Amino acid sequence: MFVLEQSFEVSYRYKVFFTAHLFARDNELLACLFGSLVEPDYVAKALFVLDEGVLACHPDLPRQISEYFKAYGDKVRLAPEMIVVPGGEAVKNDPVHVEKIVDAIDRHGIDRHSYLLAVGGGAVLDMAGYAAAISHRGVRHIRIPTTVLSQNDSGIGVKNSVNYRGKKNFLGTFVPPVAVINDSHFLTTLSARDWRSGIAEAVKVALIKDLSFFEWIEANGHALADRSAAAMEHLIIKCADLHLRHIRGGDPFEFGSARPLDFGHWAAHKLEYLTGFGLRHGEAVAIGIALDSVYSFKKGLIREEDVERILRLFSTLGFELCHERLWERESFYLKEGLTEFREHLGGKLTITLLEALGKGMEVHEMDERLIEASAIYLKNYEESLHLSPSASA
Amino acid sequence: MFVLEQSFEVSYRYKVFFTAHLFARDNELLACLFGSLVEPDYVAKALFVLDEGVLACHPDLPRQISEYFKAYGDKVRLAPEMIVVPGGEAVKNDPVHVEKIVDAIDRHGIDRHSYLLAVGGGAVLDMAGYAAAISHRGVRHIRIPTTVLSQNDSGIGVKNSVNYRGKKNFLGTFVPPVAVINDSHFLTTLSARDWRSGIAEAVKVALIKDLSFFEWIEANGHALADRSAAAMEHLIIKCADLHLRHIRGGDPFEFGSARPLDFGHWAAHKLEYLTGFGLRHGEAVAIGIALDSVYSFKKGLIREEDVERILRLFSTLGFELCHERLWERESFYLKEGLTEFREHLGGKLTITLLEALGKGMEVHEMDERLIEASAIYLKNYEESLHLSPSASA
Repeated sequence: MFVLEQSFEVSYRYKVFFTAHLFARDNELLACLFGSLVEPDYVAKALFVLDEGVLACHPDLPRQISEYFKAYGDKVRLAPEMIVVPGGEAVKNDPVHVEKIVDAIDRHGIDRHSYLLAVGGGAVLDMAGYAAAISHRGVRHIRIPTTVLSQNDSGIGVKNSVNYRGKKNFLGTFVPPVAVINDSHFLTTLSARDWRSGIAEAVKVALIKDLSFFEWIEANGHALADRSAAAMEHLIIKCADLHLRHIRGGDPFEFGSARPLDFGHWAAHKLEYLTGFGLRHGEAVAIGIALDSVYSFKKGLIREEDVERILRLFSTLGFELCHERLWERESFYLKEGLTEFREHLGGKLTITLLEALGKGMEVHEMDERLIEASAIYLKNYEESLHLSPSASA
Repeated sequence: MFVLEQSFEVSYRYKVFFTAHLFARDNELLACLFGSLVEPDYVAKALFVLDEGVLACHPDLPRQISEYFKAYGDKVRLAPEMIVVPGGEAVKNDPVHVEKIVDAIDRHGIDRHSYLLAVGGGAVLDMAGYAAAISHRGVRHIRIPTTVLSQNDSGIGVKNSVNYRGKKNFLGTFVPPVAVINDSHFLTTLSARDWRSGIAEAVKVALIKDLSFFEWIEANGHALADRSAAAMEHLIIKCADLHLRHIRGGDPFEFGSARPLDFGHWAAHKLEYLTGFGLRHGEAVAIGIALDSVYSFKKGLIREEDVERILRLFSTLGFELCHERLWERESFYLKEGLTEFREHLGGKLTITLLEALGKGMEVHEMDERLIEASAIYLKNYEESLHLSPSASA
C-alpha cells in the first residue's frame, strides 16, 4: 500500500455593507464594489434575480437598476433581462426556479468571473445562491437581502439551499457570497409580521452569546415593536456581526456536529412544516427558543426569572409563543423534529440549551416528557397573558 | 454606510491510497480508514454507487462489498441496496442518475456524517460526487476510481460535475472527497483504449511541470503500451502526486483565471463534442496536447525536435493524433472551442503552451491561422507515419 496526502486551505473574504437606496444615482457603493472585484482589463456581466414580493412594493426597481448600470456600468454590463421569482418558501419548493436561473446564466454567458445579484427575502437568496453555486462550479454571487431575517441572519452567511420532495434545505452547498449589501430602505415596506419575524434570530444569538445585546433588545423592545428604524439598524448590525464572528470563529462549513446557531431551530423547522409554512421562519424560531428556554429552566440550567425575561421580551415584540400545534396531541409529532434535525445534520444529536442568559451550552439528548411539560408551560403562560393583557406591557 | 468584514479559511485534508483487491477479506485498508474517519460512539452509514461497466468485468463486486462490511462493518453500516449507473459520459448527460442517488441518500438516511462511496470511471465519479456534494450541503464522499484516467487525474482532485443541456460540466461544485482509493486490480480488466487513454493526462502534467517524468514516460513507452502493471503503477502515482501538488500549491477552487492543468484541453473538449463523445477524453486530450505543442513550436517557443519527441511518444503509446474533425473544414468549428473554453472558465482567455519540455507558460490569445497550420502539421505527421510505419517504433 502507498499513500499520498493532500491538504490545503481555501480563503474566503467578503464584506457586508449597510446602506440605503442602493440604486439611487448618487449611491456609488455598488460601482465601487465592482471596481474592486472585477479584474483589470475585463468587463464582467451582471444578471439580476428579483423577488416578486419586493417588486410589488418597489415596482420601479428594474428601471432604477437599469439606469444605475447605464451610469456606472463601465466594469460590468447588465444582462438584457432580469429574472423575477416568487418570494417566500414556495420558491424553494419548485425546482423550476433554479432551472430558470441556471438557464439564464447559460443564455447570457454569466461565467465564473461574472455576477449573479439576488434581491429579495431569505428564501429567494437561498434559492438563487444555490443556482449560482452549482453553475460553472460557482459564479460570483452578490446578495441584497430585503428582510430583517435575511439582513441579520440567513443572507449574510455561507449557506444556500432549496427544498427537495418536501424536505427543507435537502439540497444545497456551502459557498460564501462575494458581497452582501443590506439596504435599509427595503425594510420600510415590510409587513408587520416580516418586520417582527427577523428579530427572533437576534434574540437567539443574544441569548446564546451576548448578555449585553439581550439587555439592549429588552431596553429597546418597544422601539422595535413600534418600527423604529434606528433601533432596527442597530439590531441588524449587531446581530449580523455576532453571526459573522461565529462563522469565522468556528467551523464555517459545518464539518463537525456542533450547531449552536441553531438554538431553538429543531422545533422551529418542525413547526414550519406542521403549519404548512403558515408560520414565518422567525415566528417559528421565537416559539422554538421559548420552548428550549423553558426546557433549560426545567432542566435546572437557568432560573425561572430568566425564562420570564425571555418570554416577556417576545411578548413585547409581539410574538405569539404558543401555536396550537405545539401543545395539542400534535406535540408527539413535534418530537419527531428532533430525529429529523439529527438526520439532516448527521452525526450525534446536538442541541443548544441555555446555561445562562447570554450563554449557550450543548446537550446530546432531550427528555421527551420535559419537552411536553415545557410546551404546557408555554401554553399556560400565553393564557395568563390573555387573561391579563397588561402583563405583556 | 457601515461595513462588516468577513474572512476565514477552510481546511481540507484527504489521502489517496494505492492498493489492490480493496474488498478482499484480508485487506484492512477500508476498515482502518473508517476507523479513523468516523467519530467515536457513532455508527455511520455507507451507500455504494457502482459503475455498470465495472460490474460487467467484476460481477462479484456487490457480494464482496457486502461480505467485507459484514466482517468489518462495526463503524459503518452498509445501506441495504447499491445504486448501479451506466458508465461513460452518458451518465453525466441524463439528470435522472443524480436524482436516483439523491433519492437513495434520502431513503437510507445518509447524513452529513455518513458516506457515499462511488466505484467507477471518471464520469461516474464526477456525477456521484456532485450528488453527494449537493445532498445535505455535502455528505462525505469516498472515490474508488477504476480507470487510469480517474486514478491519476479526475478522481483524485476537488471537482465534480454533470453536463447540462449538452454543455459539458456546466453544473458542478468544488468539494474535495474525504478519501480516494486507487485499486490497481480494476486496471487489469480495462479495454486497450481505456488503458491508453488515461496516459495522456500523465504526458500532459509531465510536459508542463516535470521534464524527468516526461523522460521516464519516454523510456517506458513500450512497457506502458504492452500493459506493464508495474510501469502503470509508477505512472499513476507520479501523475497523481503532481496533480495533488498543483492543486494545493495554487488556487484549488479556481477563483482566478489560470488553468495550467488544462493544457491541451480547449481543443480536447471541442473534439469530444464534435465526435459525439466517440473519442475518449484521454484520446481527445492527446490530440489537444499534440496540437498545442505544434502550435508552441510554430510560435517559436520550443524546437521542432521537442515536438517530434512528444509526437513520437504518443505514437509509441498508440494514440491517433489526427482525427478527421481536426483538419477538415471542421477546423473552423474547432476554433469555437477557444471561445467556449473561455466562457466556461470565465475571465480572460488563458491557454497553456510549452516554453520547454517540462515547462508550461500562459498566453491570453491564440492565432487562428497558426492553429490551422498546426492541425495540418499533425495531419502530415500522421500520414508520414502510415507511409513508413517503422517511424513510430
